[in-house]
Amino acid sequence: MQLTSDGAHGIIAAAQDRAAALGVAVNVAVLDAGGHLKAFDRMDGAVLGSIDLALRKAKTAVLFACDSEAVWDYCRPGAPAHALELSNGGLAPFGGGVALTDAAGGLIGAVGVSGGAVDQDLEIARAAAAALPR
Amino acid sequence: MQLTSDGAHGIIAAAQDRAAALGVAVNVAVLDAGGHLKAFDRMDGAVLGSIDLALRKAKTAVLFACDSEAVWDYCRPGAPAHALELSNGGLAPFGGGVALTDAAGGLIGAVGVSGGAVDQDLEIARAAAAALPR
Amino acid sequence: MQLTSDGAHGIIAAAQDRAAALGVAVNVAVLDAGGHLKAFDRMDGAVLGSIDLALRKAKTAVLFACDSEAVWDYCRPGAPAHALELSNGGLAPFGGGVALTDAAGGLIGAVGVSGGAVDQDLEIARAAAAALPR
Amino acid sequence: MQLTSDGAHGIIAAAQDRAAALGVAVNVAVLDAGGHLKAFDRMDGAVLGSIDLALRKAKTAVLFACDSEAVWDYCRPGAPAHALELSNGGLAPFGGGVALTDAAGGLIGAVGVSGGAVDQDLEIARAAAAALPR
Repeated sequence: MQLTSDGAHGIIAAAQDRAAALGVAVNVAVLDAGGHLKAFDRMDGAVLGSIDLALRKAKTAVLFACDSEAVWDYCRPGAPAHALELSNGGLAPFGGGVALTDAAGGLIGAVGVSGGAVDQDLEIARAAAAALPR
Repeated sequence: MQLTSDGAHGIIAAAQDRAAALGVAVNVAVLDAGGHLKAFDRMDGAVLGSIDLALRKAKTAVLFACDSEAVWDYCRPGAPAHALELSNGGLAPFGGGVALTDAAGGLIGAVGVSGGAVDQDLEIARAAAAALPR
Repeated sequence: MQLTSDGAHGIIAAAQDRAAALGVAVNVAVLDAGGHLKAFDRMDGAVLGSIDLALRKAKTAVLFACDSEAVWDYCRPGAPAHALELSNGGLAPFGGGVALTDAAGGLIGAVGVSGGAVDQDLEIARAAAAALPR
Repeated sequence: MQLTSDGAHGIIAAAQDRAAALGVAVNVAVLDAGGHLKAFDRMDGAVLGSIDLALRKAKTAVLFACDSEAVWDYCRPGAPAHALELSNGGLAPFGGGVALTDAAGGLIGAVGVSGGAVDQDLEIARAAAAALPR
């Protein structure tokens, strides 16, 4: 299955619904399975520094086919892959990037959310990913 | 006046309507007055190389407060600003980037379109910019 | 309100007055609300490595609409946003970048100071920001 | 002789006086002999894309110890150094960057001006360089 515009729009809408419910303004980035930008939206009032973070979280998730914070297990102090976060132009190994998979478990892209606190971004990204029709 | 999400969405919808009428799939990027990404959408089927071009055309337009192809008058062979296109991380001095202005003529951002032939991209970008409520 | 040249010059003058009182030579960078350079000045004797730091502190402040050292609360060891400092081309999450706001609280830019000890840079940046007419 | 803050400020003031006389808003960048930023000022209304151009013209002048447009003689079509303009992170081989020399002819820096037409930028940069006390 390939990520479509309809799918991407549904993901963004679900993210923004959850963000509005939480009272935060976020950036939402949707990448395809190749890590290429499919859709992006910045809610009015979201800080500028979070544009790059939303993109980077989604990139981290799609490149490693996992949620962005899982990458931290490899590069945190004492873990075996020191400085992994410097690869690929810089990763964002913290919450808010969620891999998107189809019904068969195939990777079709990722969504990245930034603008709230990390746990809010994570909650929003999960709600967004769950909106993907399967 | 500041560019809002509503304004950005209207611009993208108008661009995609015109692209559909022309039978091409394009990328549309909307930047704010500071050149920061506000919204982006890639239609299904648009080539990957056009993602960067849509972003770059919009950047060219907003940084020089003019349409992207106007920059070519400065850097084409024989013109006075050779290699101007190497500045600002690389410009796209050809059609498809249109500056967005408010009713008072103030710069509020730019739209960049890429995916069709250059004249199609330009037509789509102009139709998109015209959709901005003033 | 937009940051003007008069405002930027007042900020730089206040920074240099304070730096002179402290006996240190600093770089002072003033960015507008979009993170674009408005004015910069390097006092005679300031170290070269601080040029980039002054610019980067100001960028950090304006992109996250806060003082630069506040970003450290997100990315220090044990904090939730590991490697946040790698985003946006590299942040400077320590003292010396101060967001500039107008009387209504709107973000209009940032000032970044580097060249002294971090607490001196911070004191100078705060004195500089306080000089902005409101 | 080393470029001082007083010298840099005199250069910027002279540039802005000439720009005002010509009715254009420009960016002025002053670099030292090592190509490091000494002072920068953006007049209100100057386009954002010219910030990088002012810096790049000054860099071109100081790196090759000549005025920026002289570099074009080496890299224009038919000249021996094709693509020279791609070196050093990208040069600006057109008018508006002027090398600064002391009374003994030693290179002490460069000034770069951008924001007007190329011939205006060049006139402003020359007026600025002439203001350097010797």
